[in-house]
Amino acid sequence: MQDITRTEIASLGEFGLIELLTKNNETKQAGTLLSVGDDAAVIDQFGRQSVITTDLLVEGIHFDLMYTPLKHLGYKAVVVNLSDLCAMMATPTHITLSIAMSNKFSVEALEEFYEGVYAACDKFNVDLIGGDTTSSKLGFVISVTAIGEVAPDKYVTRAGAEKNNLICVSGDLGSAYLGLQLLEREKKIFLENPKIQPNLYNQKYLVGRLLKPEPRIDIVEWLAEAGVTPTAMIDVSDGLSSDLLHICKKSDVGCLVYEDKLPIHEDARTMAAEFQIGTAACALNGGEDYELLFTIRQEDYEKVARNNNISVIGYITGKNEGEKLLTKGGVYHNLTAQGWNAF
Amino acid sequence: MQDITRTEIASLGEFGLIELLTKNNETKQAGTLLSVGDDAAVIDQFGRQSVITTDLLVEGIHFDLMYTPLKHLGYKAVVVNLSDLCAMMATPTHITLSIAMSNKFSVEALEEFYEGVYAACDKFNVDLIGGDTTSSKLGFVISVTAIGEVAPDKYVTRAGAEKNNLICVSGDLGSAYLGLQLLEREKKIFLENPKIQPNLYNQKYLVGRLLKPEPRIDIVEWLAEAGVTPTAMIDVSDGLSSDLLHICKKSDVGCLVYEDKLPIHEDARTMAAEFQIGTAACALNGGEDYELLFTIRQEDYEKVARNNNISVIGYITGKNEGEKLLTKGGVYHNLTAQGWNAF
Repeated sequence: MQDITRTEIASLGEFGLIELLTKNNETKQAGTLLSVGDDAAVIDQFGRQSVITTDLLVEGIHFDLMYTPLKHLGYKAVVVNLSDLCAMMATPTHITLSIAMSNKFSVEALEEFYEGVYAACDKFNVDLIGGDTTSSKLGFVISVTAIGEVAPDKYVTRAGAEKNNLICVSGDLGSAYLGLQLLEREKKIFLENPKIQPNLYNQKYLVGRLLKPEPRIDIVEWLAEAGVTPTAMIDVSDGLSSDLLHICKKSDVGCLVYEDKLPIHEDARTMAAEFQIGTAACALNGGEDYELLFTIRQEDYEKVARNNNISVIGYITGKNEGEKLLTKGGVYHNLTAQGWNAF
Repeated sequence: MQDITRTEIASLGEFGLIELLTKNNETKQAGTLLSVGDDAAVIDQFGRQSVITTDLLVEGIHFDLMYTPLKHLGYKAVVVNLSDLCAMMATPTHITLSIAMSNKFSVEALEEFYEGVYAACDKFNVDLIGGDTTSSKLGFVISVTAIGEVAPDKYVTRAGAEKNNLICVSGDLGSAYLGLQLLEREKKIFLENPKIQPNLYNQKYLVGRLLKPEPRIDIVEWLAEAGVTPTAMIDVSDGLSSDLLHICKKSDVGCLVYEDKLPIHEDARTMAAEFQIGTAACALNGGEDYELLFTIRQEDYEKVARNNNISVIGYITGKNEGEKLLTKGGVYHNLTAQGWNAF
């Protein structure tokens, strides 16, 4: 018998795992400006800078085909990558798309999926330039790589937040999570009694936030036009807490977020009450909002305050002050990363 | 009951499917020089040209973990993409890597996989700049996107072959296929009787060709130094027949290949005899050789003839002459695409 050391992946978590696997990653190309560890990488190509990101979506982990229309799935697979480019202040230009699917899929089903892909490409002026199509005994797997461009050295990483910077977020938070809870509930009811058809007509907003997110290219464009350069930026995919902690860690700072400043949609409030979960918890830990979370210098406050799509939710503190949430009741809580724990 | 038309994917095949799904693909970016349909895409970035390719590898379809060491798998996942860049005459510079794996994998197993990835990155001077790590209920899935660069307009597509061009191939063909047959045989024996340990020591070459292919960067560099610009090029991943038919289709030409010119390794001949399969069939339909298949002008023959790693195996004919193989016995056969039929 061999004596083999076995460490469970769950014991490290996603970010611990990535850290371990990339600790020996050496940069050899002079053109590599930013490598593993941000929303996207940046490579210099004789003065022009390309921004590159990639995401892998797996059936049963990232989507449930029982309530995810294939057209929406195709659209979303593109959007989640464009959102990563937005988080670098880059303009998306190209994508590649690889899929693996079992023979349970018909050609018509795939055409529907591609309709969504092309709808996103058309809407955001992006070219689909390549990919791979293969079979799978295992389910549907989607891999998208997105490429964008940014003016030389104008990209924004997670690492630049400074003490007293203001913390901003676009749109609203927690709705996608509540949309997911709603669909999971209706799925359960349907599986228990297939005669009961789900009624989701009044929940178009929440369900739409989950199934058809939009990359905040509009915010990136507005920031550029307004002359506001965020000091750090990330997109909210894992949840506000988890993503804000990334900024704090990379920037070596702390933060204070005010519960009463969290932007929450009216439909989300209603549904959170129905599910008897706190709206703040949905906003902080829900994930999949694909909003932009960024920090700005105080001098940019006046400009940002004029944009109704941006909320200032707190400010950056010193590292030794930690990462805190001030509740409506005046109590300080530590922000903790929840979210990805799929193993 | 709804009346839904269902077309099976198998009825189209891989290439028919890709054609259908990309027929409405419109190019919107002025910088897109070459899109879907070649070994890689080419995008112009203010004069510099980037070459981009992507591959998705799925457990049970592209590899069998029972006889594929994880380090080799990591190495190969990078190599198959670099090979696509070579087939464009591009120099690889960067990759992204996404993986999905179940909790049957330990951290140590993943470290072994990444060792292979980094070994390939180091050997071929490529930076790993990003990726995605996720879980899967389904098995191990690997997605790699590779980026390379090429001097402006010096990339080579599948579309430039002209009548009377010579057809060349690097290295030898069919060995990877025979390595696969060998491993499959040993797996079967082992499953029937676990006490019998496989003895593969004398088959290092064949097994190595399957498990640890190399991208022919050396051939690309030699061609550039020798001043030979192929008129068309592709890498041999699906098998010589299938890949040569791609060149013929894209270039709107026919071809004639001589069976007795096919480069076949001595170990492959011996093993093919043992399996009682024709060596030509292995070379034509085997796949996974990752050699370069390209066409050159007749005036470049003298130069190419001096390189022992390149074989001239036939020539390009007019489209109406079809795609033919001339056997050792003097009989003409039609070349047919076998290979991918996984559905």
